[in-house]
Amino acid sequence: MAMGWFYLSFYSLWFLGLMCIILTIYWMHLWHGGFAWDGTILMFNYHPVLMVVGLVVLYSAASLVYRLPQSWVGPKLPWKIGHAALHLLAFILTVLGLVAVFQFHRHSKVANLYSLHSWLGIVTVFLFACQWFLGFAVFLLPWASMWLRSLLKPIHFFFGVIILSLSIASVISGINEKLFFSLKNSTQLYSSLPGEAIFANSLGMLVVLFGLLVFYILLVSSWKRPEPGILTEGQPLLPDGE
Amino acid sequence: MAMGWFYLSFYSLWFLGLMCIILTIYWMHLWHGGFAWDGTILMFNYHPVLMVVGLVVLYSAASLVYRLPQSWVGPKLPWKIGHAALHLLAFILTVLGLVAVFQFHRHSKVANLYSLHSWLGIVTVFLFACQWFLGFAVFLLPWASMWLRSLLKPIHFFFGVIILSLSIASVISGINEKLFFSLKNSTQLYSSLPGEAIFANSLGMLVVLFGLLVFYILLVSSWKRPEPGILTEGQPLLPDGE
Repeated sequence: MAMGWFYLSFYSLWFLGLMCIILTIYWMHLWHGGFAWDGTILMFNYHPVLMVVGLVVLYSAASLVYRLPQSWVGPKLPWKIGHAALHLLAFILTVLGLVAVFQFHRHSKVANLYSLHSWLGIVTVFLFACQWFLGFAVFLLPWASMWLRSLLKPIHFFFGVIILSLSIASVISGINEKLFFSLKNSTQLYSSLPGEAIFANSLGMLVVLFGLLVFYILLVSSWKRPEPGILTEGQPLLPDGE
Repeated sequence: MAMGWFYLSFYSLWFLGLMCIILTIYWMHLWHGGFAWDGTILMFNYHPVLMVVGLVVLYSAASLVYRLPQSWVGPKLPWKIGHAALHLLAFILTVLGLVAVFQFHRHSKVANLYSLHSWLGIVTVFLFACQWFLGFAVFLLPWASMWLRSLLKPIHFFFGVIILSLSIASVISGINEKLFFSLKNSTQLYSSLPGEAIFANSLGMLVVLFGLLVFYILLVSSWKRPEPGILTEGQPLLPDGE
């Protein structure tokens, strides 16, 4: 029963994550002319795709490494390296996503970082960078004491969850903003809910659903590496909420 | 030290929550002509205020009732009633916030529920309604068994956190959307970052900061009612994250 629930959650997560990526590519391809790394609007189209892939899906996959039963036994170091490497890949894709939008703005003489979406997004990426470097220095390099690691572990976990929440809020406001831009001057207004609006709104709700499942696995499920000295499976993180 | 940290967090929370409310009122008053319950754009101006007051600040205050040391001793029922009553008040204000925008749309012949902001917002309010009724039926009415309550407690807590996350994402996308509307046809474009843009962007970031502090107190802090049979203070909810 427990293993069935585990596999159902993980396969649902794979499916939802993959759908988020495919639908974002499809949205940019079908309604916005596809992709080109040339500073034009076709370069901007990489921005939503790279953000959904890096900051949402790959970030979540990297965060969930320790929820895999295979990671609960044997040495922890390979899993730590995997956790850090996947997050680094997510971060590189995120930075490329920023390059895509900044280059497009430069090419088209549009101001950078003026909307609330961009303010929230850039703060999220900054927090992600701090989180990665601090995590690398404290948990992967061998010099930090056990005392310091124990102290920072809940903070590291808390900010991991927070950064994903902020990423999803950034993606939602970004999709909303993009639709107001692209369905403004055309004959089809956003308010008349044309095909693109329904498609991209649904994509936004799918990203939210994906995030909910990640939060569920991170916060509620008991699928985690037992602490040293504890032989039974770890307790759920939110056992006594109210 | 622990009590100093507790009071610092709670007073910061009060201050941030109050600032979020005051700045939203000030934004609508100074840049959008104030308030009137008459179906015009002045009625719409109640929408952001009521959402920030109901769905963010009061919702958070209601959620944090069990983090007050006064609630950890003596009978739990008065605190449960307080928790439910505050959430009900938050819900009523939220519904009034919806009425404000729907009435404005009807009066101005604007379509309802087309943007991703509105889709996410309405799903958030629907989840809030379900959460309140289920919480009332299971935790306040006397008929549910202890087994059912224990089963639903982590779910109730999880969705409490999720609804606040979705509320904040809705508020962020709503502020972003409002600024694209109001700084579109004027001589001051959003992209030139006029006073209103900086003011409302900062308000959005303040709402995020308020949310972070609420999540910290809910998820990381050890300020909570000890479970029956546990005499010491409860353990942090996220003690062994990664």
